[in-house]
Amino acid sequence: MSELDLKRINTIRMLAVDAVQKANSGHPGLPMGAASMAYVLWTRFLKFNPADPHWPNRDRFVLSAGHGSMLLYALLYLTGYDLPLEQLKQFRQWGSKTPGHPEYGLTPGVETTTGPLGQGFTNGVGMAIAARHFEATFNTPEHAVVDHWIYAIVSDGDLMEGVSSEAASLAGHLKLGNLIYLYDNNSISIEGSTSLAFTEDVGQRFEAYDWQVLRVEDGNDLDAIDAAIRLAQAEPERPSLIMVTTTIGYGSPTKAGTADAHGSPLGVDEVALTKQELGWPQEPKFYVPDDVLSFFREAQQRGRTAQDAWQQTWDAWARAYPDKAALWRQVVGGEPGADWESHLPVFKEGKIATRNASGKVMNAVAAYLPGLIGGSADLEPSTKTFLNDYDAIAPGNYGGRNLHFGVREHAMGGIANGMAVYARLIPYTATFLVFSDYMRPAIRLAALSEYPTVFIFTHDSIGLGEDGPTHQPVEHVMSLRLIPHLDVIRPADANESAGAWRCAIRNREQPTALLFTRQNVPVLTGDAHAIWDGVERGAYVVSEAQGGDPAVILIGTGSEVHLALAAQKLLADKNVAARVVSMPSWERFERQPQDYRDSVLPPTITARVAVEAGVTLGWEKWVGTQGAIIGLDRFGVSAPYETIYQELGLTPEAIAERALAQLQRG
Amino acid sequence: MSELDLKRINTIRMLAVDAVQKANSGHPGLPMGAASMAYVLWTRFLKFNPADPHWPNRDRFVLSAGHGSMLLYALLYLTGYDLPLEQLKQFRQWGSKTPGHPEYGLTPGVETTTGPLGQGFTNGVGMAIAARHFEATFNTPEHAVVDHWIYAIVSDGDLMEGVSSEAASLAGHLKLGNLIYLYDNNSISIEGSTSLAFTEDVGQRFEAYDWQVLRVEDGNDLDAIDAAIRLAQAEPERPSLIMVTTTIGYGSPTKAGTADAHGSPLGVDEVALTKQELGWPQEPKFYVPDDVLSFFREAQQRGRTAQDAWQQTWDAWARAYPDKAALWRQVVGGEPGADWESHLPVFKEGKIATRNASGKVMNAVAAYLPGLIGGSADLEPSTKTFLNDYDAIAPGNYGGRNLHFGVREHAMGGIANGMAVYARLIPYTATFLVFSDYMRPAIRLAALSEYPTVFIFTHDSIGLGEDGPTHQPVEHVMSLRLIPHLDVIRPADANESAGAWRCAIRNREQPTALLFTRQNVPVLTGDAHAIWDGVERGAYVVSEAQGGDPAVILIGTGSEVHLALAAQKLLADKNVAARVVSMPSWERFERQPQDYRDSVLPPTITARVAVEAGVTLGWEKWVGTQGAIIGLDRFGVSAPYETIYQELGLTPEAIAERALAQLQRG
Repeated sequence: MSELDLKRINTIRMLAVDAVQKANSGHPGLPMGAASMAYVLWTRFLKFNPADPHWPNRDRFVLSAGHGSMLLYALLYLTGYDLPLEQLKQFRQWGSKTPGHPEYGLTPGVETTTGPLGQGFTNGVGMAIAARHFEATFNTPEHAVVDHWIYAIVSDGDLMEGVSSEAASLAGHLKLGNLIYLYDNNSISIEGSTSLAFTEDVGQRFEAYDWQVLRVEDGNDLDAIDAAIRLAQAEPERPSLIMVTTTIGYGSPTKAGTADAHGSPLGVDEVALTKQELGWPQEPKFYVPDDVLSFFREAQQRGRTAQDAWQQTWDAWARAYPDKAALWRQVVGGEPGADWESHLPVFKEGKIATRNASGKVMNAVAAYLPGLIGGSADLEPSTKTFLNDYDAIAPGNYGGRNLHFGVREHAMGGIANGMAVYARLIPYTATFLVFSDYMRPAIRLAALSEYPTVFIFTHDSIGLGEDGPTHQPVEHVMSLRLIPHLDVIRPADANESAGAWRCAIRNREQPTALLFTRQNVPVLTGDAHAIWDGVERGAYVVSEAQGGDPAVILIGTGSEVHLALAAQKLLADKNVAARVVSMPSWERFERQPQDYRDSVLPPTITARVAVEAGVTLGWEKWVGTQGAIIGLDRFGVSAPYETIYQELGLTPEAIAERALAQLQRG
Repeated sequence: MSELDLKRINTIRMLAVDAVQKANSGHPGLPMGAASMAYVLWTRFLKFNPADPHWPNRDRFVLSAGHGSMLLYALLYLTGYDLPLEQLKQFRQWGSKTPGHPEYGLTPGVETTTGPLGQGFTNGVGMAIAARHFEATFNTPEHAVVDHWIYAIVSDGDLMEGVSSEAASLAGHLKLGNLIYLYDNNSISIEGSTSLAFTEDVGQRFEAYDWQVLRVEDGNDLDAIDAAIRLAQAEPERPSLIMVTTTIGYGSPTKAGTADAHGSPLGVDEVALTKQELGWPQEPKFYVPDDVLSFFREAQQRGRTAQDAWQQTWDAWARAYPDKAALWRQVVGGEPGADWESHLPVFKEGKIATRNASGKVMNAVAAYLPGLIGGSADLEPSTKTFLNDYDAIAPGNYGGRNLHFGVREHAMGGIANGMAVYARLIPYTATFLVFSDYMRPAIRLAALSEYPTVFIFTHDSIGLGEDGPTHQPVEHVMSLRLIPHLDVIRPADANESAGAWRCAIRNREQPTALLFTRQNVPVLTGDAHAIWDGVERGAYVVSEAQGGDPAVILIGTGSEVHLALAAQKLLADKNVAARVVSMPSWERFERQPQDYRDSVLPPTITARVAVEAGVTLGWEKWVGTQGAIIGLDRFGVSAPYETIYQELGLTPEAIAERALAQLQRG
């Protein structure tokens, strides 16, 4: 490579080295080894406008190996994003925009939160699906308003994680030729050589997924990297994995190529030796030669020009296709669409599983929510999440709105998250509640990064019956409630289910988990709009005590609300006035003003019974340590669900009995 | 195939069909399609003794596709395990030994709990590692006391799950030639054809993992299946995947080869048609021809003979190698070994991270606990879990006791579970606490099935510092507490860490999660044995109030105990007597008698403050709804950990302040 190229690449390397050393914490090795490939990608290929990080037609760049965050921060600073050098000096410090791992929403130009390995890889697949869907939806023979790539730098750790295997298999199946991943193949992981545990033939594996696999033998051979990316772009159907052989910690005389360069600062002495080795001035720290900065900052003009040209195309397109432009404004711009809420169905009577109600709701509003797109991890006949009026997204046919994720819950979550950050889509996923465990890392990242993904979980209790304890969630409802920034809604009936969907769609600032029953439950026959509002507030009085002020409050969620309602009748027969509170969402209830909460759960009424077919831990919050909690601090059993409820003591009689005991206590 | 073979295979099929139909729930398709391969395996190859399901040298058979449980139950009944026909008639009913998915410990002959896809596949890899380890440890040139195979039947769903990709990669790396998996390749999943989402070249993928891939084009070609298994056995190094093309629901005239045969009973009419199609009598249900039963029951004599022969070998070996035999009795038989507890280190003073203390404990006792074997998901330099006096298990060298799992948390959990059921090993895993999410399905199965796996999680709070919120657990401590049958222990210091290890090792009836700090914490300098006993009981008074009866109780776990201790001093300066309770394990404390619990947390002292660097939900249980809870109902931040604690209000001052407010309330 030329001296100029080298100087620019070394600038990236040394910014990373200095920042990690100053923080006395971080991962210098990846930025040093991968700087050359990032340099080629960012200066010769990547389409972006630092002044508008949200330009819809930008290429996406994902640093899946998020521990190498300084590589990304250096590039963002150098190319002129709103990330001044001062921020790089604050790497990993309180209040900075340069945290240990890239965080979406915090730092301009960070497309998705990465660090937990495999997640960025998987998010990128979601972005690529979304991009293909947009191309199919918006482009016309004359206008390409969507035409860009999804790039990522991925590490051996990413490729060892199962979630990326799932995502890669689906990406190959769907023929996502817009996906170009550079594999920083440095043969080192934290415990040492990857030969300790990772000797598979990665290239062959990706070929088995129907990816194009390209190889660059020398990670500092800029022309070879350039050529590989061109070949990747030339492949219309297969995603591309470019395996780039690199040296972790390149430039460090004693640590390069070893695990010592992976997760710790080089140390003051080794930093000095490295700068000497690379012919870099020892001082100042964070040195950026002027000509280097000028060169990188050309990205600003390049980006402006590119975005301007695109805007002209877009304007012409919008004039020619006003309907498409209106759709764009809705799906990409997040403008409210038609009055979709008026199409929410009202359920009148009978019994219906809330999963079925959810399916009816989704299909009733789908036409008015064009961004609603998703699917199930091979359980769609059970989760009832198919949008009947729309195709499935399939290889070469991306205009549909249903996704067949296969038995890949974890990738499903990560892919949906990638779609959520791609534009203002409303991605949804679906599986059984017990399998929320399989996708929990993706749910957590949605919550942390406030991706508005909708996670649908059906078969939400022992009510699923015969499949038995391996499939019966017990701890999962509470476990989801523990995740900050995640709204969990477990509706009691069909109308609460419509209300739950209304919450999830309205809330574009955070993810929502919707929990539905397998079994039929009675329809609550009150005013549907009042029920929706009750769900919106998280908890409400679903049935007031008859014949006097309530002496005891029965609190239930989901299907157990009906047990509480039956218990209310039993108590009424004994002249005990019981209020029944339906509490579909703790989080929403907690966000209500104190006076509303007190109106639902008056502090003066301390006789309380909570019922939920799950672990009791946590319910003390609402019933107090003296209150009664009827739940399941054990795993379930394989049997018809009515038997399980009966045998495990989840019955109206048990609730009534505990309520009476509560009153005697008082 | 011969008429006789066909009759026997159809017996398996029809038992499954009748049982699913009677239960009106279940999966008939897999048993019907995979009956032939199971027949060949179980009657020609599988080494087992129905009279002694725990014979150590039996072959292991795992039905990873646990939804096809009736296939396994039929075989167990037919071959003479203690599972009478009556149990098959009680399929999926309350109190039966034939639950919807196979459950370890409930049904004789079930080697591991399966159903959640990919878990059985992964458990089998753990069994194969354990077997190789035992071969290396026990066999001599003259005696093969361990020589058997690990077989499984796996489904497309198993192979789509990321966890099996992780496990397969590691199995190939470790050259586990004792692993023989039959892939029931029926091209159907619940949503329809696997072509909807799963078109990768599975064979090529497994070749990339360095597996031997064999193909049987007709799943009813018994000779071809036989030949493939022989080829698999002949391969010493590579695990084998035998891809057997089958027809789901084979024999059902209208449902065979379709998703309709997957997860629902065939229906009365279709059952009749199927029996007609296969030339099977309509009545009686659960029909087993006498000659068929006699044939299958020959397994009893065969098994007795095989086990007797093995016992002779074992006896001769034990006489020749008494030391090895003693080790066997300990590791396989579960006999207590040397007095390992006397080697638990006592920590005297100073500050030490509990992860480091844990590493010292492990290395101090490893020589006395030969079954202790495990490793980390590529974080061993951070988790401190390497057993220094022992090799790593590596391809061709299985005598070591350290495992390099690679960045594969989920497979790590499943592999450890497989080792836990293989013999009386003490398998352990290690990663950061935040990544417990990646392995949660395996943790849950350990709890459900009561595998005594030890799950080590370090970097257990925001105390990990600069890596930031993607790596800082907040909800995880509480989230693990929600899982029934799992003991969670979060020790406050080095001595509590030794006590925590003592609990984990003593408790061979259930899994334990051990949570350790990244950061240094002071050593508690009381009597170490008293501290260990305190940990054993889950909670204890770590520092009694000075100068009077306690007015307020401060409760902490882990590193936050030291904040409570500092707050106790601040309060003493204000003449407020505060008791500090260390509560490393809720589950253990809950199992104590009421009088002990009341002695630690006297009901009369209602002024209480709990402090834990995690979500507050759940702590009302111990402090009441009026008590104070200092925790984190938000995600963390990337910064030095002292700053994070300070900024987020986890300080002695804050605790003291809340304690004073508690007293004013009272």
